[in-house]
Amino acid sequence: MSVINAAGGSRTRVFGDYMTRAPVLRVRDLEHACQTIQWIDAHEDEIKEAVKATTSHGRLAKIEKFPMGRGLYLRFSFETGDAMGMNMATIASEAACRVIEVATGAEMVSVSGNMCSDKKPAAINMIEGRGKTVVAEALIPADIVEAKLHATAEAIVETNVRKNLIGSSMAGTLGANAHAANMVAAFYIATGQDPAQVVGGSMTLTDCENVDGNLYISVRMPAVEVGTVGGGTKLPCQREALEILGCSGNGKARKLSEILAVTVLAGELSTLAAQAAGQLGKAHAELGRGKKCQ
Amino acid sequence: MSVINAAGGSRTRVFGDYMTRAPVLRVRDLEHACQTIQWIDAHEDEIKEAVKATTSHGRLAKIEKFPMGRGLYLRFSFETGDAMGMNMATIASEAACRVIEVATGAEMVSVSGNMCSDKKPAAINMIEGRGKTVVAEALIPADIVEAKLHATAEAIVETNVRKNLIGSSMAGTLGANAHAANMVAAFYIATGQDPAQVVGGSMTLTDCENVDGNLYISVRMPAVEVGTVGGGTKLPCQREALEILGCSGNGKARKLSEILAVTVLAGELSTLAAQAAGQLGKAHAELGRGKKCQ
Amino acid sequence: MSVINAAGGSRTRVFGDYMTRAPVLRVRDLEHACQTIQWIDAHEDEIKEAVKATTSHGRLAKIEKFPMGRGLYLRFSFETGDAMGMNMATIASEAACRVIEVATGAEMVSVSGNMCSDKKPAAINMIEGRGKTVVAEALIPADIVEAKLHATAEAIVETNVRKNLIGSSMAGTLGANAHAANMVAAFYIATGQDPAQVVGGSMTLTDCENVDGNLYISVRMPAVEVGTVGGGTKLPCQREALEILGCSGNGKARKLSEILAVTVLAGELSTLAAQAAGQLGKAHAELGRGKKCQ
Amino acid sequence: MSVINAAGGSRTRVFGDYMTRAPVLRVRDLEHACQTIQWIDAHEDEIKEAVKATTSHGRLAKIEKFPMGRGLYLRFSFETGDAMGMNMATIASEAACRVIEVATGAEMVSVSGNMCSDKKPAAINMIEGRGKTVVAEALIPADIVEAKLHATAEAIVETNVRKNLIGSSMAGTLGANAHAANMVAAFYIATGQDPAQVVGGSMTLTDCENVDGNLYISVRMPAVEVGTVGGGTKLPCQREALEILGCSGNGKARKLSEILAVTVLAGELSTLAAQAAGQLGKAHAELGRGKKCQ
Repeated sequence: MSVINAAGGSRTRVFGDYMTRAPVLRVRDLEHACQTIQWIDAHEDEIKEAVKATTSHGRLAKIEKFPMGRGLYLRFSFETGDAMGMNMATIASEAACRVIEVATGAEMVSVSGNMCSDKKPAAINMIEGRGKTVVAEALIPADIVEAKLHATAEAIVETNVRKNLIGSSMAGTLGANAHAANMVAAFYIATGQDPAQVVGGSMTLTDCENVDGNLYISVRMPAVEVGTVGGGTKLPCQREALEILGCSGNGKARKLSEILAVTVLAGELSTLAAQAAGQLGKAHAELGRGKKCQ
Repeated sequence: MSVINAAGGSRTRVFGDYMTRAPVLRVRDLEHACQTIQWIDAHEDEIKEAVKATTSHGRLAKIEKFPMGRGLYLRFSFETGDAMGMNMATIASEAACRVIEVATGAEMVSVSGNMCSDKKPAAINMIEGRGKTVVAEALIPADIVEAKLHATAEAIVETNVRKNLIGSSMAGTLGANAHAANMVAAFYIATGQDPAQVVGGSMTLTDCENVDGNLYISVRMPAVEVGTVGGGTKLPCQREALEILGCSGNGKARKLSEILAVTVLAGELSTLAAQAAGQLGKAHAELGRGKKCQ
Repeated sequence: MSVINAAGGSRTRVFGDYMTRAPVLRVRDLEHACQTIQWIDAHEDEIKEAVKATTSHGRLAKIEKFPMGRGLYLRFSFETGDAMGMNMATIASEAACRVIEVATGAEMVSVSGNMCSDKKPAAINMIEGRGKTVVAEALIPADIVEAKLHATAEAIVETNVRKNLIGSSMAGTLGANAHAANMVAAFYIATGQDPAQVVGGSMTLTDCENVDGNLYISVRMPAVEVGTVGGGTKLPCQREALEILGCSGNGKARKLSEILAVTVLAGELSTLAAQAAGQLGKAHAELGRGKKCQ
Repeated sequence: MSVINAAGGSRTRVFGDYMTRAPVLRVRDLEHACQTIQWIDAHEDEIKEAVKATTSHGRLAKIEKFPMGRGLYLRFSFETGDAMGMNMATIASEAACRVIEVATGAEMVSVSGNMCSDKKPAAINMIEGRGKTVVAEALIPADIVEAKLHATAEAIVETNVRKNLIGSSMAGTLGANAHAANMVAAFYIATGQDPAQVVGGSMTLTDCENVDGNLYISVRMPAVEVGTVGGGTKLPCQREALEILGCSGNGKARKLSEILAVTVLAGELSTLAAQAAGQLGKAHAELGRGKKCQ
């Protein structure tokens, strides 16, 4: 972070912001699936009304339909204000399904048919987003890369390509990063988020470019599931952490996701630079072993 | 858990137990990659000696080689005793690479080339395992399913197929479960594990079968990265939790992973049964909202 | 197929029908990415006009934007009439990008940035569809299952769960089927399609259910990239095959995709039933070896 | 290819060569799975004998075991000489399973439990290989890149990173290439291979490096399932094609896979260079439309 500060800071933006829930309905056959889809398409307003009755902060924004055999998967996308919104989305989805059930005869098997997909590493979240999709970037001048990171843009780019891009591809990984989950886990625990949702954060994509000897680095986090109201954000320690970040309460959830993205950016920069310089094992030896955990 | 107890308990077994680290080396060309592989194959003992010099608890068990272009990825598998073993594996891998570098002229670009793969959702870990590969199972008699879970084996099996198996497949998920990461996150935080490694736990596969009206349920966890010595296990609260479980210190890491697997089994059973009975939204409404977090 | 006919036939439906091309643009930074997205959102009509100038049959239906670092990925979805439409989509995407380049200063690095994704096994196609998304189903009465397939619905369902659903999940597969690619390859070669697009067809999801002893079977094919005009459909043999199917020329592409889906359904049924009955090895021994290929 | 020839040719190597079949067995419970695994480990010679009785060319090289719940997946790896070997592997696997069934009481549900995995895009094949794992490379001097490809190493590397590495990652693709399946499909049809196995070839990884202004390009093909005896290689046209390549009959299968890898290398080079130069749409417009297919 000191390197990013020395370089003039980071830029970050939120590109999508929807909590999802994806019930699975049982239908009699393909014809019934088609009829159910047609009814949903024609009655979206009615479904949205049913959702409205369950929540004052949430709003149903989109319904995707994935038919297969005797199952129909619906993926509901909700705006959930400054709440992470999972419970809100679950309750609202159940209400929506009850309306659909009555009108169409389709039966909800589970309010979550796993196309949501919560706390599982799922391509659908990496591609379509879940929670907030956030991108952060920084441009580190060549002299700072050398003086503070003891590396070069060229070496860091090579490490990123060989490790994060090619190594991840060969390992069959969703996302491509050095250790985004480390920062996400610490951040989620400290700020009262759901630590199981580290999974969504672990699908981060990290990229580096050599721009005339300077280092451009960015992270794309497709599934940042955070809130600044509700859940663990009410706990005393966690609320304090949010307040320190200026992220407690209403109107702050996107800001929180942006701070997380920059935190991940800083962690990626640090590790890539250290690995580029062959120092990772050495750092672990010095700091991690034979010392008390404090 | 009370249901599993009423059913006579669970059986669980550890099938693999290796911590992995996968450096990436830079080679000049394909011929150099071949020569490096040949040298490694011919000098495995020498490499193991170099590892031995860095650790009294660890042992290098296997070296996989993945050549591509001017990169050569090595995946080292270590026995790490009762430590989770990441630091041990990192330091040992670096030592191993130094020997290989000197002998072959290949140069280590990064001690982690992401085929390890740590804290990223990676197919290689799901398939080959990382840390402990654990399976747990229970058979719940029909009358207990009905009396305690208010469901039937048939309904739970249907929920598992439609949600965990088909829904996960359509979502492009690694693993197939309801919410394994929830139990893993809580367990890891409570017992001093690395909460970012929830990612490995999230690739759990849950299966259910209707056996003459009784419910057979199992979980396969391919990447349980836990230890009972070192790291966060030294913290007072966490050590106490380990002691309560009878899992503090040496000789206990596999037992700990088995208790985790059964915990996940219980959580999966609970959620599948609740969803089968259409109760998930209702439970969230009653318990999760408008109540103080304690 | 004879079994499906005896059971009264199959039902099939097309759910989506868009050919995609996904250029990648180089942007200066995140701010530039945002500006480019805003311009695209505000000038969709202008972009559609540019597309119109390149094709009389195609129509730009949707533009998805995936920003990351100094890259901006656009995924264009086109209606392409009865052509498979890849060339049309490529030319149209290039024209669209030229308009965007001039207005925004973003520069097209490649007309295909691999989020299309053509002839690669990609989750984005499995989830969002590419070409036609087709579902087919059949219900085979218990007596026909027994008399003609020498199996039971129960055994075939078990085979499907263990092999297609669980086995595929454990193997890290996109899709879940027995051998859809076999039927797709034969069908594509016979009808003048692009045989490299077998890859899209290989992501088929096959499901089976035991409905009161009868066998319900369905396939969901998310990425059927076929046409009845243009390309290899003009070749004499291939045109004849299309004519035999009643699928030559305009207005026939969706019908062709439905016939393919039923063909895949039949192939899945045949193999699942044979494997359920333990006959696969035996069939290969009798038919495949020591005989002339004709 | 002319560019590669002008650059002094390509180097290529085969790194693994095993055909796989992965039956799934039904076991009573976890204990039974363990007993079955123990029996297999203790009786590998007996299982190999059973295999030997079914084939004169094949040899069982490895048995991997993946236990889960009441299923046990075995992945058999066979040396199959110059045959592609799928039928051989299927028949041999069935024989192996019969021995295991009798001794352990485990029952084969399907000779293919989809961890093989044949003709499906599966991470297990990308990681562990299926058929031949082949790598090919070439180094194209800067002047040839400029004169013949009208591009620079720098531009081609950028295209490869943005398109093949990052774009594929964001699309959730297995492998990372421009259009390997095109070359594989043409090659397989021409030489009598199974065109449905294009799927395995589509998981190719393409990498490019700028080496002092020269272009280094490589492809890694983890799953090349080809043969030079048996199957479609007996057809007159296909045999002639094999003869032209010097690859007909015994002792030639690895050479054939190497020629394929170089063919894919050439196709990747051509398309990356063309896209780098923004010429793809233009080439399609000139060559592909309004012309007769010949």
